[in-house]
Amino acid sequence: MIGLIRDRFADIPAAPGTEGIGDDCAVIPLPGGEALLVTTDLLAEEVHFRLDTISPFELGRKALAVNLSDIAATGGMPWASFLSLSFPESTDTAWIEEFLEGYKTLSKTFGVPLLGGDTTASSGPVVINVTVIGRMPYDDLKRRSGARPGDRIFVTGYLGDSAQGLLDIREGRGESGFAAIHRNPRPYVNEGIWLGRQKAVHAMMDISDGLASDLTHIARASGVTARVDLERIPTHTRIELAVTGGEDYQLLLTVAPESAAVLIEKYRREFGETLHEIGTVESGEATIRWIENGIQIFPTWKGFTHFQGLSF
Amino acid sequence: MIGLIRDRFADIPAAPGTEGIGDDCAVIPLPGGEALLVTTDLLAEEVHFRLDTISPFELGRKALAVNLSDIAATGGMPWASFLSLSFPESTDTAWIEEFLEGYKTLSKTFGVPLLGGDTTASSGPVVINVTVIGRMPYDDLKRRSGARPGDRIFVTGYLGDSAQGLLDIREGRGESGFAAIHRNPRPYVNEGIWLGRQKAVHAMMDISDGLASDLTHIARASGVTARVDLERIPTHTRIELAVTGGEDYQLLLTVAPESAAVLIEKYRREFGETLHEIGTVESGEATIRWIENGIQIFPTWKGFTHFQGLSF
Repeated sequence: MIGLIRDRFADIPAAPGTEGIGDDCAVIPLPGGEALLVTTDLLAEEVHFRLDTISPFELGRKALAVNLSDIAATGGMPWASFLSLSFPESTDTAWIEEFLEGYKTLSKTFGVPLLGGDTTASSGPVVINVTVIGRMPYDDLKRRSGARPGDRIFVTGYLGDSAQGLLDIREGRGESGFAAIHRNPRPYVNEGIWLGRQKAVHAMMDISDGLASDLTHIARASGVTARVDLERIPTHTRIELAVTGGEDYQLLLTVAPESAAVLIEKYRREFGETLHEIGTVESGEATIRWIENGIQIFPTWKGFTHFQGLSF
Repeated sequence: MIGLIRDRFADIPAAPGTEGIGDDCAVIPLPGGEALLVTTDLLAEEVHFRLDTISPFELGRKALAVNLSDIAATGGMPWASFLSLSFPESTDTAWIEEFLEGYKTLSKTFGVPLLGGDTTASSGPVVINVTVIGRMPYDDLKRRSGARPGDRIFVTGYLGDSAQGLLDIREGRGESGFAAIHRNPRPYVNEGIWLGRQKAVHAMMDISDGLASDLTHIARASGVTARVDLERIPTHTRIELAVTGGEDYQLLLTVAPESAAVLIEKYRREFGETLHEIGTVESGEATIRWIENGIQIFPTWKGFTHFQGLSF
């Protein structure tokens, strides 16, 4: 659908340097060498979330978090947000107030003012649309297309927690720690800004659809092969969930090999956390090579694509 | 609801010069003396439109038009748009394609690229969220708060056509010319940009909720009385519809009295159209004084507020 829309609108010219549908954010050059970033997400009840498995506070928080993550994915600094909310007429005020409180908590954490809103009582389910704008130096922009052969591939944290949490919620273990992570994703805002400034970081995006899907985006956009060593993927759960489960919102990046050691050390000093190396970029077909203990395997990862449907 | 949200988020600071919820657009200062404008609208089936009274082509066109009108209302130039669309799973592709075609037609007319999109098949009714960003010189910004005593009040065209059209549609005359105007509003994009550059224009907004409601916004934001001479309001229909009916999307502006004659003439030369004077700005209570043949009247305009509900 997005491809159809992009193709259909391709003949309306945009200003030079503008980048539209395709990456985590749209990019528009600003005066003074800056870039304006824009990302927007529509979340519909029953498709992206269920009201009986997430509190209004968590839902408000998460609706903003996923958009902040898109800004972080390019290295941008969030600037302002805009919230549209459509809810059934029967919704009580307390629900809306808790939703706003969750949204506001994260807004305060990262100093992102809410500058526009639209609310409508409707006959249908809850629908949320959040738009976040960001800014950054244009020349620092990180794209999916920046990976180069020889780069080393990193993630900012553990993969699969959110998918395990969704599984827990579905199986009646909604009180588990994984379930809490699923409902309260952490957007890597400050880490994204910092990584955006590092010339050694060549490609970056956030992992929203799962490593297998999102690293394929980088491989295709960059025209490279991504070699992943499965045993190096940091996870607290099954490797299938770590690889195919969505909504971890960790940052996925490729780094110039000669600078990787220094970057890891600087990142640790800055944030007290580890950049986890999971593989390398190679020249070749635009795909992922999965390596298990040094031997290439050809997994189908079947049975986990449903995490990309009702996944919130 | 919007007031509640604005108050709740008021303690998250924004950059100096930023203007959030309250005017037609959010305003954010850009480097180089420019302003970034952002407006967003959520439209829900059965609340803002009915699928049996508007074609998908017209709906797509109108969803963009109302947002372009918000940018025009401050004097801004539209820069890019972002479309989120949630539709029932049963929606056929032809419906979506016609919707996009309508949206695209207006995008091409004003050279506004679509730079982001999000589409979701859901269990609920059609929900559309459009965000449009614009730009303009910061110092040229027109606000609701700019009216000064002595200003003359103008509208760019006839009022009430859209409300009459909605009435026609409800009463089975969906083929009328008024109904066509209701379904195909004209955003005053070029006129707004031009008027934005005129120092003589003090306050400006678009008429989306009806003259009575929108001129009250100007009176309150500016702390002035707006005197309206009812017989000067240009209309093809009943005065009640002209005054209280929404969705005309004409521009409403106040102009320095000493420059009004020259402005009218320049506007006529530029666009071949008339700026219609409907009254004057006076010092006094922040309200509207309705004058009929020189005598103040106190109309209740009852029975027309329903145009602000299902109004699309």
